[in-house]
Amino acid sequence: MRVELITTGTELLLGRTLNTHVRFVAESLFPLGLRLQRQMAIPDGDGIRQALEESFGRCDLLIVTGGLGPTSDDVTREITAELFGCELLLHEESAAWIRSYYEARGRGFDAGARRQAMVPRGFEVLPNPQGTAPGLYFPGGTGHSPLFLLPGPPRELYPMFAAEVRPRIEALAGGPGGVECREWVFAGLGESELAERLEPALAGIEGLEVGYCAGSSSVRLRGIGRPELLEKADAAVAETFPYQAASSHGETMEEVVVGLLKQRGEWVSAAESCTGGLIAHRLTNVPGASAVLGMSFVTYANEAKSRLLGVSEAVLRERGAVSPEVAEAMARGCLAASGADWGLGVTGIAGPSGGSAEKPVGTVWIAVAGKGLPTVVRQGFFPVDRETFKMRASEKALDLLRRQMLGFPS
Amino acid sequence: MRVELITTGTELLLGRTLNTHVRFVAESLFPLGLRLQRQMAIPDGDGIRQALEESFGRCDLLIVTGGLGPTSDDVTREITAELFGCELLLHEESAAWIRSYYEARGRGFDAGARRQAMVPRGFEVLPNPQGTAPGLYFPGGTGHSPLFLLPGPPRELYPMFAAEVRPRIEALAGGPGGVECREWVFAGLGESELAERLEPALAGIEGLEVGYCAGSSSVRLRGIGRPELLEKADAAVAETFPYQAASSHGETMEEVVVGLLKQRGEWVSAAESCTGGLIAHRLTNVPGASAVLGMSFVTYANEAKSRLLGVSEAVLRERGAVSPEVAEAMARGCLAASGADWGLGVTGIAGPSGGSAEKPVGTVWIAVAGKGLPTVVRQGFFPVDRETFKMRASEKALDLLRRQMLGFPS
Repeated sequence: MRVELITTGTELLLGRTLNTHVRFVAESLFPLGLRLQRQMAIPDGDGIRQALEESFGRCDLLIVTGGLGPTSDDVTREITAELFGCELLLHEESAAWIRSYYEARGRGFDAGARRQAMVPRGFEVLPNPQGTAPGLYFPGGTGHSPLFLLPGPPRELYPMFAAEVRPRIEALAGGPGGVECREWVFAGLGESELAERLEPALAGIEGLEVGYCAGSSSVRLRGIGRPELLEKADAAVAETFPYQAASSHGETMEEVVVGLLKQRGEWVSAAESCTGGLIAHRLTNVPGASAVLGMSFVTYANEAKSRLLGVSEAVLRERGAVSPEVAEAMARGCLAASGADWGLGVTGIAGPSGGSAEKPVGTVWIAVAGKGLPTVVRQGFFPVDRETFKMRASEKALDLLRRQMLGFPS
Repeated sequence: MRVELITTGTELLLGRTLNTHVRFVAESLFPLGLRLQRQMAIPDGDGIRQALEESFGRCDLLIVTGGLGPTSDDVTREITAELFGCELLLHEESAAWIRSYYEARGRGFDAGARRQAMVPRGFEVLPNPQGTAPGLYFPGGTGHSPLFLLPGPPRELYPMFAAEVRPRIEALAGGPGGVECREWVFAGLGESELAERLEPALAGIEGLEVGYCAGSSSVRLRGIGRPELLEKADAAVAETFPYQAASSHGETMEEVVVGLLKQRGEWVSAAESCTGGLIAHRLTNVPGASAVLGMSFVTYANEAKSRLLGVSEAVLRERGAVSPEVAEAMARGCLAASGADWGLGVTGIAGPSGGSAEKPVGTVWIAVAGKGLPTVVRQGFFPVDRETFKMRASEKALDLLRRQMLGFPS
């Protein structure tokens, strides 16, 4: 079943507004074994006519969001009726609902408000308990594929999708899909090395669809197929990359690390210089992080490194703040100051300024100290923009901790 | 000039990845007086053929992102050459660059890597200093509109757009548009209050186009028009919202705060519980933050609040960790521990669990302590998902600091 999505809204094409509907609809379709074949964003107004006509000729199910509201550029309903050659009828129940909604908010039920209760003949009405304009559904026939017209605001769209749209699509698709999607997240690998080494093993799994995606801090492999094919892919991944595959169900590195710490009943603390709090931020993005992180330090200035972590001023002076010795002292100092089981120390040059020939922008030293274990110190080099540098350095630090916990080489 | 954008990438249609390219390209086109007429997202692979053919028939300039990489589903280059009926030639300079890039990273220059240096005859090569695959530009002719093929990864796309794409589009558009885009960022205001109170003033500025945008932590007003109209809008904004308009050229709250601190030669430190390091992370995202932030604390556990910040155990026990008293003690303790000029204290319940009837998930207390000043304590309530909660709480904390520095009511 070919499914397409048209998102209307001038703001989507003006910049600044992120189109989150695409992700939402795609995620909602996935468990039904369906996938968007195409998504289009078009401005409010008459431009929807051409997009609708094109999509009708191409797909088996069309979902349209936006353009059902009360203002003059909301024309999805009217243009659809024109294209279908059917009249618009007032839906009394919706009109009553919209009137009460407006009145409760002290707003007048004017012509624009009333227009939202008009329904093209042959369309079903999908109630909108969170807003005014109902959704509309055409179940297919008279040469047209099934069509959903849905409200644009997320707080109206999301519940309507769950309550009204999803069951109808499941019926169209003939039940749940049988195809699953799985995502493996890798650390310390480039996209082409990953692809090169995995492709021979994955190519033999007939019917499996794979894709690679390089994010700001990690590379991901996505597999789509029946569950038994995904199991085979998982075995191939585990064999090829026993240490680099950090997760096999799309979990982020921070989720993996928090999960491992919880399992082990251990605590972590970080001493962050160049990552400036990002490691703590990422760890505390994971619900329940309070069970594994009690305190953490941002030690940007040398004085902070000495005073909070006990890094020796002589080492700072002789080796410089960006050095393996200081990273190690930060990790051990953090362990001592926090009483945690694991201490991270990260020091580097995020840029854009502050680099030198010997220590260029992008240089970072990372140390992981564990209670009663020798401290591991590794260098990274990420000569990229400041925010990407912070992401990669934090990813490498979390990965180093993961490998230490699992007894993997690092 | 009708401009369209095709973003390729299966991940964009699977619901895992937000399509941020649309926003970026749209924003980049504005200052040239251009705007996107349509955007499409299509999966990796052969589906791009139909999308390219359709767009060619419809627009005067087409921008395509993605599908130039080394893996087998990267086929934008090859399909474009097919549609144009032109051969692919090896671009020696690009090949040398890609080879050196791979070798510097210890990776082999294989067939996939080499494919990235192939260029359709008649296309210009746009260098990619941040990555491997160069961009490609067809300047128009032989029945085809001008066409850009650009890399998908943002860190490659963004600089290439600025250095190579923008000047070419400016030339196509016949010089800069004479129209500018300006963005005001507001704190402590909802979108509808902003619109309602500003609209009377802005409606009188003929020829100005405005848009409102509610982000995860702030509301923005976007104005598009000739520079003199934007000046009028700026005056209206300043008069209507003298305290809430945090910036008038799109600067983020952290940029505003770091800028103010630098101007004043002052230091800040934060004691973060529920925001978990996000305030420090945001501040250190601003280049040069080391001049205003020397150290900062993540004190998740009560013990950390007592030990690092000197928050009294009795207060923690009697008032609870999420209380105005603890926020205040954290801010003052942070001031004392760090020796900074300003101390922030943030304590709240990010959720999803940990709430109670008296202190529901979303509750947060924020305090700003300044040397020799009475400490200001304010409550926030953000009953949203964990990451959005952290964003909003950190935004409110930074805004409170901004208002204190400027002597504004808070």
